[in-house]
Amino acid sequence: MKAEIISVGTELLLGHVINSDAAFVARELASLGIDLTNMQVVGDNEDRLLKALEDAAKRSDIIITTGGLGPTCDDLTKTAVSKFTNLPLQENKDAYIALKQYFGSRQIDSNQFKQALAPANSIIFANEYGTAPGFAVPFGNQQFIILLPGPPSELVPMLENSVRPFLAKMNSGAIVSSILRTFGIGEGAAALALDALMNNSNPTVAPYASDGEMFVKVTAKAKNAKEAEKLLNPVIDEIKSILGDVIYGENVANLEEVVVNKLIQKKLSLATAESCTGGLLAKRITDISGSSEIFRLGLITYSNMAKNQLLNIPLELIDQFGAVSEEVAREMSIKVRLLAKAHFGIGITGIAGPTGATSQKPLGLVYIALAHPNGCQIYKMSNKGRYMGRQWTRMRAASYALDMLRRYLFNLSRHIKE
Amino acid sequence: MKAEIISVGTELLLGHVINSDAAFVARELASLGIDLTNMQVVGDNEDRLLKALEDAAKRSDIIITTGGLGPTCDDLTKTAVSKFTNLPLQENKDAYIALKQYFGSRQIDSNQFKQALAPANSIIFANEYGTAPGFAVPFGNQQFIILLPGPPSELVPMLENSVRPFLAKMNSGAIVSSILRTFGIGEGAAALALDALMNNSNPTVAPYASDGEMFVKVTAKAKNAKEAEKLLNPVIDEIKSILGDVIYGENVANLEEVVVNKLIQKKLSLATAESCTGGLLAKRITDISGSSEIFRLGLITYSNMAKNQLLNIPLELIDQFGAVSEEVAREMSIKVRLLAKAHFGIGITGIAGPTGATSQKPLGLVYIALAHPNGCQIYKMSNKGRYMGRQWTRMRAASYALDMLRRYLFNLSRHIKE
Repeated sequence: MKAEIISVGTELLLGHVINSDAAFVARELASLGIDLTNMQVVGDNEDRLLKALEDAAKRSDIIITTGGLGPTCDDLTKTAVSKFTNLPLQENKDAYIALKQYFGSRQIDSNQFKQALAPANSIIFANEYGTAPGFAVPFGNQQFIILLPGPPSELVPMLENSVRPFLAKMNSGAIVSSILRTFGIGEGAAALALDALMNNSNPTVAPYASDGEMFVKVTAKAKNAKEAEKLLNPVIDEIKSILGDVIYGENVANLEEVVVNKLIQKKLSLATAESCTGGLLAKRITDISGSSEIFRLGLITYSNMAKNQLLNIPLELIDQFGAVSEEVAREMSIKVRLLAKAHFGIGITGIAGPTGATSQKPLGLVYIALAHPNGCQIYKMSNKGRYMGRQWTRMRAASYALDMLRRYLFNLSRHIKE
Repeated sequence: MKAEIISVGTELLLGHVINSDAAFVARELASLGIDLTNMQVVGDNEDRLLKALEDAAKRSDIIITTGGLGPTCDDLTKTAVSKFTNLPLQENKDAYIALKQYFGSRQIDSNQFKQALAPANSIIFANEYGTAPGFAVPFGNQQFIILLPGPPSELVPMLENSVRPFLAKMNSGAIVSSILRTFGIGEGAAALALDALMNNSNPTVAPYASDGEMFVKVTAKAKNAKEAEKLLNPVIDEIKSILGDVIYGENVANLEEVVVNKLIQKKLSLATAESCTGGLLAKRITDISGSSEIFRLGLITYSNMAKNQLLNIPLELIDQFGAVSEEVAREMSIKVRLLAKAHFGIGITGIAGPTGATSQKPLGLVYIALAHPNGCQIYKMSNKGRYMGRQWTRMRAASYALDMLRRYLFNLSRHIKE
């Protein structure tokens, strides 16, 4: 069964609104195993909407529209669908009762009353959070147009409560996906390593880049969820054996979630001393609910004075090696660990830029130190010939720190492939 | 001039990703006065992409594609555009040099090398944040296909730095925009206050919500930039007089930029002590290049122990009033100011949730204290009957802290309209 989405709204074409509705609908369709082949956006313009419906009707069994169902004059989806299907708009009893209920003792004016009209033979979907109900309108060769309201607060519950059961009855089959997140390998290198698998059609294997990391999405299709998982699991195992320990988690949100949860589970505590990342590492750790159990304290020792005052790092050491040095990173991690009486201490010092570089110490150079019960590890992060900007450098440095701790906690090698 | 967008990516059809790229492109086009009539999404499927290009070429002068430019085999936009335009893919010198620079001493494999290929006659747009450059490919009747990379971190700067000037040259006349950023007023309230202006057609006045703030975009169109500015300026002045000091800046990036630059200009220094925001405030301050001149130190005193140990806040005080209290926030701000010998100290303590609330202290309750040379101010932030989640609460609290400092630095009233 093939489906497509037509989103209606000039606000989308002006970029005032991001089309999250289309993504919500797409996700529902995927989880039902319905092939979504196309998405379109048209403005509040009847001719263009009719043209879009015409194109869609040639190739799809189900057309889902979002938006244009409200009471104002630019809400024209229903009129266009009525014209397209040759089904006249008439008062729909269910829709009228729902509207009466919504308005209670208040009067329904003629604009609002429009919302009780539906193309003949429509099936109505109640709107629990607004006035405009949704509709399924039968047409053509056992095809349906499904009209949904635009506001996500109305669309999402209608999708889950009414449209999903309606579509599930029409369709058979299920789609199940899994995401493997990695740190320390690029999209290109991962694609090369997974080349053979990426030609699979079921399950499909696709690498994605996001925020300096890459993840692999594996998706299987079968007649039910259990069968889909059966297809999925051996492929996931194969990817794990190919990529190895650069994979930090399956269906997790991010590195910090994995690290914080492992610390909580092992009842181990952490303290941080940051210079160039300026609190970003602590922020990422404390993004995770429950982190207060394991995060003792964080220091942002931006200045040499602060490094000396809070961490008791000798000013002579800073003078001798420079604030951005292996030696200072090491001292930061060791001293903050002792100060906080924590199991782990992390120290980060570097040149996030765009200013502050020297011939010896280029932009993007960051030293990251992890002090643990048995000693201290240092990672030197360099810009590899291309400085990627302040925010990227900071994000990357915080990620390396988290990954060093992950590798320690999971007894993995320190080596990071690049 | 008519434009349309074709977004390429199976992840969009599966609903894994919300199509924010299309909205970014749409907004740029609108601000340039270019009519966007259609948006389409197709999967990583060459036939469907070719069909979409064919439809688009019939009705539009400019077709903008997003996605499918990376090194993997499902990145097929360039191949499809080459076929569609009959322009063979060949090594593009600029693209190759950029790729060499990106990889530095590392080797470029055959997958990566694909990114140096472009349809003949293409104009290249440099990618400052990734490996895949963008292209403008001429075809047909003085038409262009513009190929942009999918990751928003690459697409947005490319749009602003390269595509916008390219399109501006093609389009006659000039469009000038100005953005007024606010803190402390909602989109609805702003729209109500600006109601009369929002019916203007030139300049247009449009309010937007983003990240718990709202901004107003004013856009004027005229035959040249000078004329457009003449239209713009009186409207900007009017908006300023309507909204008043909730406007924190014109054409600035964010609150932290305004605050940090003002501190630098006045040679005043700052230190922070954060509990529930966990480093987010320090992170936002140090996001701004040059902040090392004014940011003395930051403490993340997540635990009571840390509050006592680092800031010497008596445990009895914490016991008496609770860690989340006006009294503790005040002490945090005063003590961190003294410790750092800074002009200003900020203390934040609250319940970011989703756990940790009590009947007395609900989720979303945060106390924010600003210690300054003449005393200390406290703001009590509450959830107003609706808890908005951990990240929202943290972001909002950090913004209030920055806005308190802004108001102090600019001698504004402490009152924040809501």
